[in-house]
Amino acid sequence: MRISYQELYDCLLGVLLKTGFAADRAELCARLFADTTRDGVYSHGVNRFPRFMEMIRNGIIDIHARSELVDSHGAFERWDGKRGAGNLNAHASMERAIALSRAHGIGCVALANTNHWMRGGSYGWQAADAGVIGICWTNTMPNLPPWGANEPRLGNNPLVIAVPRSDGHIVLDMAISQFSYGTLESYRTRGEQLPVVGGFDLEGNLTRDPGAIESSRRPLPIGYWKGSGLALMLDMLAALLSGGEATHQIRADVPQETGLSQMFIAFDLQSIDKDAANAELINQIIEFVQRPDASSAAKVRYPGQRALEIRRQNLTEGIPVEPEVWEKVQGMSDKL
Amino acid sequence: MRISYQELYDCLLGVLLKTGFAADRAELCARLFADTTRDGVYSHGVNRFPRFMEMIRNGIIDIHARSELVDSHGAFERWDGKRGAGNLNAHASMERAIALSRAHGIGCVALANTNHWMRGGSYGWQAADAGVIGICWTNTMPNLPPWGANEPRLGNNPLVIAVPRSDGHIVLDMAISQFSYGTLESYRTRGEQLPVVGGFDLEGNLTRDPGAIESSRRPLPIGYWKGSGLALMLDMLAALLSGGEATHQIRADVPQETGLSQMFIAFDLQSIDKDAANAELINQIIEFVQRPDASSAAKVRYPGQRALEIRRQNLTEGIPVEPEVWEKVQGMSDKL
Repeated sequence: MRISYQELYDCLLGVLLKTGFAADRAELCARLFADTTRDGVYSHGVNRFPRFMEMIRNGIIDIHARSELVDSHGAFERWDGKRGAGNLNAHASMERAIALSRAHGIGCVALANTNHWMRGGSYGWQAADAGVIGICWTNTMPNLPPWGANEPRLGNNPLVIAVPRSDGHIVLDMAISQFSYGTLESYRTRGEQLPVVGGFDLEGNLTRDPGAIESSRRPLPIGYWKGSGLALMLDMLAALLSGGEATHQIRADVPQETGLSQMFIAFDLQSIDKDAANAELINQIIEFVQRPDASSAAKVRYPGQRALEIRRQNLTEGIPVEPEVWEKVQGMSDKL
Repeated sequence: MRISYQELYDCLLGVLLKTGFAADRAELCARLFADTTRDGVYSHGVNRFPRFMEMIRNGIIDIHARSELVDSHGAFERWDGKRGAGNLNAHASMERAIALSRAHGIGCVALANTNHWMRGGSYGWQAADAGVIGICWTNTMPNLPPWGANEPRLGNNPLVIAVPRSDGHIVLDMAISQFSYGTLESYRTRGEQLPVVGGFDLEGNLTRDPGAIESSRRPLPIGYWKGSGLALMLDMLAALLSGGEATHQIRADVPQETGLSQMFIAFDLQSIDKDAANAELINQIIEFVQRPDASSAAKVRYPGQRALEIRRQNLTEGIPVEPEVWEKVQGMSDKL
């Protein structure tokens, strides 16, 4: 079934207000969940909302907590997320990084002690909407074996890089694992093999069988040893610079994953380069990458392109929701 | 054959001085090439030196050019590399980013119009030696097909992230391609298959055969579509922020690759966190990642570990050089 954006937003807002969120924060939180769903990232949109509410009920997320400045070094600031709502903390951090970039060219907020930020791409779109280049990443609980080991010792540490463009922002939003457990599950449910190898089976062989990887708990980092190293560095930087916890300190029992460390960096492109040649250069880069090959009709998508296509479709035709999820979310308001 | 570090350095210095480099710049340039060789990155050390000299002779590299400040926005600066020696420009840029980070917590230099920086890791080690966290990357000529296309439209855009540690810095230095052409060549020469798929053969099938990938010119980005997106973003950021050229504007005829755009970011960890808990946290992270599994004696290396091992070995036993390369480099001094 499909519902309108407004219907979705109003419902989420109603539930959040009843929970006790301040009105402006309930509105932002509802918008972030609704935008994520609208853009097709259902796993971190409405489908995730019940778990978000559960984390409020069991006290993991403190809805009254607001992130606080720990100390400032000019263009770089450390903030404490006080275990507040992860998406609100992340949004506030990117907002602050953007403000710092207006003053210093570049701005950075390192955020400790926060919760899951839901869709990381949200803060990339946020930066791009403000006309700045944004980079952000988060660490996670251990969910990815390093290259050379069998057990999860790394987080999949999603990384987001966003560039503003009037014809549609360029927004990369990727975890460092080749496939998330959510993706493995969808392939398995559909009875499909993965398009490329995604991890090891129980015998230690690389496989495209999603179920075999779910059994072994050995998904692959992107680029094998390379992603393994990259995930390690992202965790190290987030924890060191925020003064927060690293992956090995984050409890791996879902949904208890809390105390995350995150990084938000912004570059004020508008003040750095006022000559408006930027839009032209970005379009040239995209055009070159997407230009059909001599030998094939290449179909190269730029990061963020698919999200924009889905957004347009969902705003026109309504946002698809699973009836049982939607019923559950609608009923939440009554149970609070 | 093996030679001493001093022997290598003296020889390179002699050649560079004769070329006309200013003494201090010849010394730094010789040290960067010698350090790279000492650390086992032979392809960008002494083995690369003849091509570096060729680029000086044919005017691609201007040995008298020094990078110049274009404009400053506080913690962020734009510099013009003036097509000078790529390693000297990169070193100066990281030095400047470090200085900016001392004043602002974070510092960033975007460098346009430069040449190949040789080993990217050099500037990571440089940052870590200064006690700061360093991030840098470069764009390159098109040498990597985007996911979904056959022709090279992306650079492999090496990315470096470095964290300082007294027991040995953690330094990730990786291109966004799964294997470089140099690595493909070594595997082919040794008659070995790649450890994992590295690209497509001429029929469009994923393959571990290095020769087949050299023929198709279709190496893989790390993580397939993910690395494809990441390489695109790295190019876009470097070109937009430096005001320099993007991959599609860089001529692909080696050794003419010039006019590169690069990014250098530093975080002044020492002033951000004075409580000295950092060293402890870094060691904990490394210990956790390397801890043997229940099911296997895991052998996980942290980024930079191998370089340090090779460095120690080469400083003790001498640095291995290919006799024909060494003879050529030694003879260069006479021919200038």
